[in-house]
Amino acid sequence: MATSLLRVCPPGELLRPLAVPERLLLGPGPSNVPRRIRAAGALQLLGHMHPEVLQVMDEIKAGIQYAFQTRNRLSLALSGSGHCAMEAALFNLLERGDTVLVAINGIWGQRAAEIARRVGANVCELLKPPGKYFTPQDIEQGLVQHKPLVLFITHGESSTGVLQPLEGLGELCHRHGCLLLVDAVASLGGAPIFMDQQEIDVLYSGSQKVLNAPLAVSHLSPALCFTRDKLLRRKTKPPSFYLDMGRVPVSSRDLLCPLCPQGLESSWERHRANCSLRGRGSGAGFSVPQQARLPTITTVRVPEGYSWKDITAFLMDKHGVEIAGGLGPTAGKVLRIGLMGCNSTRDSVERVLGALRDALQRCPRSRL
Amino acid sequence: MATSLLRVCPPGELLRPLAVPERLLLGPGPSNVPRRIRAAGALQLLGHMHPEVLQVMDEIKAGIQYAFQTRNRLSLALSGSGHCAMEAALFNLLERGDTVLVAINGIWGQRAAEIARRVGANVCELLKPPGKYFTPQDIEQGLVQHKPLVLFITHGESSTGVLQPLEGLGELCHRHGCLLLVDAVASLGGAPIFMDQQEIDVLYSGSQKVLNAPLAVSHLSPALCFTRDKLLRRKTKPPSFYLDMGRVPVSSRDLLCPLCPQGLESSWERHRANCSLRGRGSGAGFSVPQQARLPTITTVRVPEGYSWKDITAFLMDKHGVEIAGGLGPTAGKVLRIGLMGCNSTRDSVERVLGALRDALQRCPRSRL
Repeated sequence: MATSLLRVCPPGELLRPLAVPERLLLGPGPSNVPRRIRAAGALQLLGHMHPEVLQVMDEIKAGIQYAFQTRNRLSLALSGSGHCAMEAALFNLLERGDTVLVAINGIWGQRAAEIARRVGANVCELLKPPGKYFTPQDIEQGLVQHKPLVLFITHGESSTGVLQPLEGLGELCHRHGCLLLVDAVASLGGAPIFMDQQEIDVLYSGSQKVLNAPLAVSHLSPALCFTRDKLLRRKTKPPSFYLDMGRVPVSSRDLLCPLCPQGLESSWERHRANCSLRGRGSGAGFSVPQQARLPTITTVRVPEGYSWKDITAFLMDKHGVEIAGGLGPTAGKVLRIGLMGCNSTRDSVERVLGALRDALQRCPRSRL
Repeated sequence: MATSLLRVCPPGELLRPLAVPERLLLGPGPSNVPRRIRAAGALQLLGHMHPEVLQVMDEIKAGIQYAFQTRNRLSLALSGSGHCAMEAALFNLLERGDTVLVAINGIWGQRAAEIARRVGANVCELLKPPGKYFTPQDIEQGLVQHKPLVLFITHGESSTGVLQPLEGLGELCHRHGCLLLVDAVASLGGAPIFMDQQEIDVLYSGSQKVLNAPLAVSHLSPALCFTRDKLLRRKTKPPSFYLDMGRVPVSSRDLLCPLCPQGLESSWERHRANCSLRGRGSGAGFSVPQQARLPTITTVRVPEGYSWKDITAFLMDKHGVEIAGGLGPTAGKVLRIGLMGCNSTRDSVERVLGALRDALQRCPRSRL
């Protein structure tokens, strides 16, 4: 190779290892990653056919079953993000022409409807304004009207800060011959959920929120529990091979560790206690009822006369604290503060409140 | 919460951090992970909206462009495995009813055909026996007969140990109004490929082979380069939102670093030199022509009178070295030895040859 055939040169910047600044991540995710999970990310690999992997997979399953409070044997972790889990659920539940009822009170219902349409499902929408939640009466009306095969609903609506009450919905769906699919990406581990007792058929979550695991370290991101019945009754294959639940991917396990020493109930209680920030989402045409406030991600109305961009940029630059603006229906209206997993502490609360007070004094008020 | 509502107990084994044994991974992947990439897996997270992330994404793009030898601007990394990249390519290229010609000489062509069928494409198969490769004449005959929109072909067929020559195929496809899609999961970085000069329209790879990056550390697994034309001409949306190239996922970057200090050409030369193991796949109804031997994964005929399972188990137990049996068409016929990235060294070659010699002396010959 005397004469090089290479036309594109190696990028010199990749010779320098990646450096990551120290920040407190109090946005709607990702949250900070504790030492043990970071250490797991630096482990050497196991091959997916190695004997230890079977044991690790059993441990992952046990951890997911604990977090989801289920004895469902089809409990697994996927290599991918929360969107990947949402697709896995919808791809495997729905076939072309199936009717799905999607409860939409924020961006995650909108997203589920979009994916279901790509599958070719008949998508019916049940709508509520952002900040509101669905009552059993709302749901029953939708079930009677549309006779869906599947109901999709979001437990932790991170775009608006709403925690959807799930009591009774499973039973209601089953009375109407419908399966209940729940998105718990932003709530799992931070608010009570009982897959078996609440008769949830399919439940998924993500790891980068309360579980504090990077999207993919340990090859793991979302966790998913599945009812097997529907899978066996399918007439056609799911559109995806990668996410076909008939063929399960391999993943690993340390992201489930933080829930175990302290226990789920103490985690729920800690998230509830720490999320009681003053000035929660209300006013400016947007409010979340007291009883439906998400304990993991708090929406706070943007203080009048300020720009949310100025505030979030100020917190990042001057305090090394990340919070976020709104998303979808709350864009421009709220600030979103995530207090998830190891970030749900009094220290984090004090730090973000101090930083917000500083922002109100030092950010410009002229722009709006 | 005096009375616990929890019905499923926390699994005690998760209190113990994961321990991983030290092994030399010389199977068809994953390969061992060098120190720098493992260290990147232990870094704190950046949020996907942080200012540094834009720079990291540019660096990833530059690294992929170098590895793929392309100036294609739609170069990106996905959160997922090699299967995920294959789906991303097929989902975005094909619409229901489109004709795709799949060159099948091992398991990866079979897999691509399976995914294309799920998309609803009209799948035509171009077949060769395992161990053989396709000539330009084979391809042209298929293009004339089927008039496909896309040709799928595997550069590194890891189930058989074949390196498919790509010279002239891009030009040939374009003369027949067809796009060229190449799977380089098992070959990228270990054997020459020139996306632009070879007129490849869509190219993807995985990170756990020559790049030595765990499937998901750094949120990154496969890399993908895409032609934008076809995306803009679609009449329907791809079945997946997660993998819709109209909406690109965020990933990070250190897996591309090993290629940069040494350079692509020296990596190719090292893989070529180290893969010259004696007794390469031949005999027993299976052989790979000399000129088409994959330099990253070597197939070796299972020595007569031995069981491949005994040999692979012996190497794992007694030598801490992983090699694999056959896959798909080569199942039961060959051993597969991967020498990829940091594992492609004379030391690895000596170690695996020594272990194989030991196996031939100490493994039972009675079973077959």
